[in-house]
Amino acid sequence: MTTRRSFLKNAGGTVALATVGPVAMASGRITETHHAPGEDLFKLGMAGYTFVHFTLDQALEMMKKTDVHYLCIKDFHLPLNSTPEQITAFHEKLAKAGVTGYAVGPIYMKTTQEVDNAFAYAKRVGVKLIIGVPNTDLLPYVDKKVKEYDFRFAIHNHGPDIELYPNAVSIHNAIKNLDARIGFCFDMGHDRRNGDDPVADLQTYAKRIFDIHLKNVTAASKEGKTCELGRGVIDIPAFVDMLRKVKYDGSCSLEYEKDMKDPLAGIAESVGYFKGVCDATRTNKRKS
Amino acid sequence: MTTRRSFLKNAGGTVALATVGPVAMASGRITETHHAPGEDLFKLGMAGYTFVHFTLDQALEMMKKTDVHYLCIKDFHLPLNSTPEQITAFHEKLAKAGVTGYAVGPIYMKTTQEVDNAFAYAKRVGVKLIIGVPNTDLLPYVDKKVKEYDFRFAIHNHGPDIELYPNAVSIHNAIKNLDARIGFCFDMGHDRRNGDDPVADLQTYAKRIFDIHLKNVTAASKEGKTCELGRGVIDIPAFVDMLRKVKYDGSCSLEYEKDMKDPLAGIAESVGYFKGVCDATRTNKRKS
Repeated sequence: MTTRRSFLKNAGGTVALATVGPVAMASGRITETHHAPGEDLFKLGMAGYTFVHFTLDQALEMMKKTDVHYLCIKDFHLPLNSTPEQITAFHEKLAKAGVTGYAVGPIYMKTTQEVDNAFAYAKRVGVKLIIGVPNTDLLPYVDKKVKEYDFRFAIHNHGPDIELYPNAVSIHNAIKNLDARIGFCFDMGHDRRNGDDPVADLQTYAKRIFDIHLKNVTAASKEGKTCELGRGVIDIPAFVDMLRKVKYDGSCSLEYEKDMKDPLAGIAESVGYFKGVCDATRTNKRKS
Repeated sequence: MTTRRSFLKNAGGTVALATVGPVAMASGRITETHHAPGEDLFKLGMAGYTFVHFTLDQALEMMKKTDVHYLCIKDFHLPLNSTPEQITAFHEKLAKAGVTGYAVGPIYMKTTQEVDNAFAYAKRVGVKLIIGVPNTDLLPYVDKKVKEYDFRFAIHNHGPDIELYPNAVSIHNAIKNLDARIGFCFDMGHDRRNGDDPVADLQTYAKRIFDIHLKNVTAASKEGKTCELGRGVIDIPAFVDMLRKVKYDGSCSLEYEKDMKDPLAGIAESVGYFKGVCDATRTNKRKS
């Protein structure tokens, strides 16, 4: 059960780190965690949006129950205008639950002021990774900002629902000539709903994928809906193989958008499925 | 996601079968389900004891939520003195939930009368597999009964907690000279708690293992407690490999004994973990 041990180890490391406050946590790559040989470079996390109907306390309780230790912070749990005291209290609450807030977002940005606000917010929160959905005309301004802050900026694809960044190639075309710190928060479910191949896209764009929304969907079309991770049309074992092949070292953050007012069973099943796939296919997995 | 498809198929088959009543279901081997090449011979089920604090309706709701379709029937959901009408109503309720009750038990037996009662009950329920814990002096009588009924009788090992059948070898020694229809309900958790190796024992006693209590435990000692399937000391991927190697064709029925008054998240995580391991290691698993 190497996965479990590595997660416990990460959780322990996280607590130790988080208690010294946001400054020590100021990394989007979570470079503080160390990996024994054979352990996975990627981590399992939760996308904050999964908990849109819950308080932070309730969200952390579900993460504790399912033994998940990384959270992408959504504004409904930590508003963009939070005071330093509120941010400190937020981090202390996460630390008590053994959770690291590793990034903020997704944050939609329609003006340069909103881009400014997002970067200033991330800095105050103490993370160096922003998940964003900026209007395309703002990308040159985002480019300036990542240089100014030395933050990474990951653009989220949203499938056929909206015109802005429906899939990976649309993001690639928008950012290919920009700073390498601008990349993807790759939503594998929306990618598949758009008719694309998440395993192939993960390989193609790996160098600029900074965050992943882990999910499965019921159909490779606009009608596809999020489902439990093992019950959809995406081949998760193949996706995990590719995570290792491209040496992805970010978070795979479960965005569970089914039964959103009563999601715990679906979250737990999905977390279990992901850990089962990871454990069963890890090269050094067998101990007995 | 071959597992999911095979489970859905089984569920469909189950509904069709169950609606024609107990007579058509009168098999402990669930031989009615058909397997496409490459699909697993074993099925995921639930041990009734998992739901000791819940009504049948609540248990079926949790099975529906977690997409599990086989149930080992415990007496608190269907008492041994149930009338034919109660048994019919029970099967109809299971059928509506897409669930097959594939066996009864565990049933403890301290007298020949209790052995008689168990066999008569199983016959009325319409299953040909009894999970039992008979006093050892009753085994010659059980031997007569399996010949009389042509039922299989699976003895449950209970680890270091009780003297009767602590592990697989104790059952083997008790039954090796008896009818081949007397075998094991192999509790892999109690086996490990007793200091034994469930993967090796599965291989050694495969021919007489008719049912499995699927679980993991926190330690290989009496102090070990049931935990989520991916979080314990038993190497589940190795166990699944062995299930296939020995061509086990019974049920792996999750007996989840943690948080028994609020078990859904742990059940869901365990079910997800098992399906993830199965999907990731199935020979013909890759579709993309």
